Amino acid sequence: MKSKEQYIVGIIGLGLIGGSMAIDLKRRNFATKVLGVESEPVNAASALKIGLVDEIVSYEDCVLRSDVIIVAVPVAAAVRIVPDILDRFATLGDAAREKVVADVCSTKENLAKSVHYHPLRSRYVATHPMAGTEYSGPWAAMPGLFDGHACIICDSQESEPKAVRLMEALYDTLNMRTIYMNSSNHDVHTAYVSHISHVTSFALALTVLDKEKDEKHIFDLASGGFSSTVRLAKSNPDMWVPILSQNRENILRVMDTYIEKMSEFRKAVDEGDQERLRELINEANKIRRIIR
Amino acid sequence: MKSKEQYIVGIIGLGLIGGSMAIDLKRRNFATKVLGVESEPVNAASALKIGLVDEIVSYEDCVLRSDVIIVAVPVAAAVRIVPDILDRFATLGDAAREKVVADVCSTKENLAKSVHYHPLRSRYVATHPMAGTEYSGPWAAMPGLFDGHACIICDSQESEPKAVRLMEALYDTLNMRTIYMNSSNHDVHTAYVSHISHVTSFALALTVLDKEKDEKHIFDLASGGFSSTVRLAKSNPDMWVPILSQNRENILRVMDTYIEKMSEFRKAVDEGDQERLRELINEANKIRRIIR
Repeated sequence: MKSKEQYIVGIIGLGLIGGSMAIDLKRRNFATKVLGVESEPVNAASALKIGLVDEIVSYEDCVLRSDVIIVAVPVAAAVRIVPDILDRFATLGDAAREKVVADVCSTKENLAKSVHYHPLRSRYVATHPMAGTEYSGPWAAMPGLFDGHACIICDSQESEPKAVRLMEALYDTLNMRTIYMNSSNHDVHTAYVSHISHVTSFALALTVLDKEKDEKHIFDLASGGFSSTVRLAKSNPDMWVPILSQNRENILRVMDTYIEKMSEFRKAVDEGDQERLRELINEANKIRRIIR
Repeated sequence: MKSKEQYIVGIIGLGLIGGSMAIDLKRRNFATKVLGVESEPVNAASALKIGLVDEIVSYEDCVLRSDVIIVAVPVAAAVRIVPDILDRFATLGDAAREKVVADVCSTKENLAKSVHYHPLRSRYVATHPMAGTEYSGPWAAMPGLFDGHACIICDSQESEPKAVRLMEALYDTLNMRTIYMNSSNHDVHTAYVSHISHVTSFALALTVLDKEKDEKHIFDLASGGFSSTVRLAKSNPDMWVPILSQNRENILRVMDTYIEKMSEFRKAVDEGDQERLRELINEANKIRRIIR
């Protein structure tokens, strides 16, 4: 791998994450050129028109021409694509000696398993840049999306040190701080601090939509608190069905705890137990220590 | 009541809401003078020092000297204070003929009941300015807090038209749009679009705090999505214990629906039913129609 140089970056999947990476890697001079692969023709044409990428290329060309390949598709597809790219590296021989592939998925354990015994495993770096919005598609891409957020690199000991350094440089360009973790811990942690938030927002949206027939009133009455709590319920099923499926065991455990906590609240409200309600809220307030 | 004039405004409770009203009513020339009543000596001193109010006065003096009295204390206290102020109006006779009292509480039905048969009921206006943050106390007060939000006036037919007009003018000064509703509908609606959001945030905070022993990791991994979903969990128990108690019946109904929706999600995740997960998320996405 080259160092302190510029790279041809191939991005597979030009949605919010892939598109936003494309923007900043190019304008901050990490990439000399950004090649994009996008299976939705409308999205591909838009990405080119908006200027997210320099060229739309075929998947094969992307692997052939790129120094770094970022797999930015939903995790169910990434589980097929990452091993396939490593297979292609193998057939390319020396021509692929410097190439690195990385994914940006929100769940990691299944991906890790899918390549664990691959002879070229070390050319893959498992990464999870923890940034996003509730919007998706190339139109949602924006400069600065990653600035100041954390990026997790998983199982880094299974990747070549040079490959890890390359990805560290890439995320440094995106102004992210890097955290290291094994993929199994990653999935437990993200279940708690990301996936459950989405499920609670989905459930909240369903609750309000289900009961509140007079939509005008929801709109009028919705305060900032409601909007921020329900915001994630706008998130795309193409992304979230695979996440909830791949991280099934962890999510179920967190949901069970969540339902238990909600039931404790319900019991305290039902019994008019103000003492207990105060205890529960005081305890919940401790989130202040860890969230600014 | 005077019209197109300026008023002496008395505010009982100088927290986030009372304090923020004080700021804008004074600087936008609705109030010639703002008198504050605050039972916490530290908060009273701070409110005066920050300049939220012109004077800290006794409760009795506030009722005596103010044209408009805003009761901005937790609802459990408001239920005692509002009828007491109407009693004092009665003893003041003609001197109180022009006075109006309004509350700003998040639950209304019990308050409505507490004054329903009061001979001076019509001098009270039940209002709920739907704005706020997760912070409390005079330090949390800020200019412009209410701008662009909705204010609900409940049971307006039970108040003197002149009293309602005065409060409309006051909320117009705060740049709020006014909605009219009976107090029983108000409590149902706010259970859906405000109270349940707080409960889901509290439960989320408890879930994460309970399971996640390594707080450093919560902090590192917490993305914008988590922060916005859990933000309301910082909310003050002094405010929320009374709300959850006063709006018990409605909240229980909403919590039951919520737990049911959450359980449907859990079932779909547990059974690996991706079709059903997609349906649920697509349905939840419809919140886009009503929340920007």
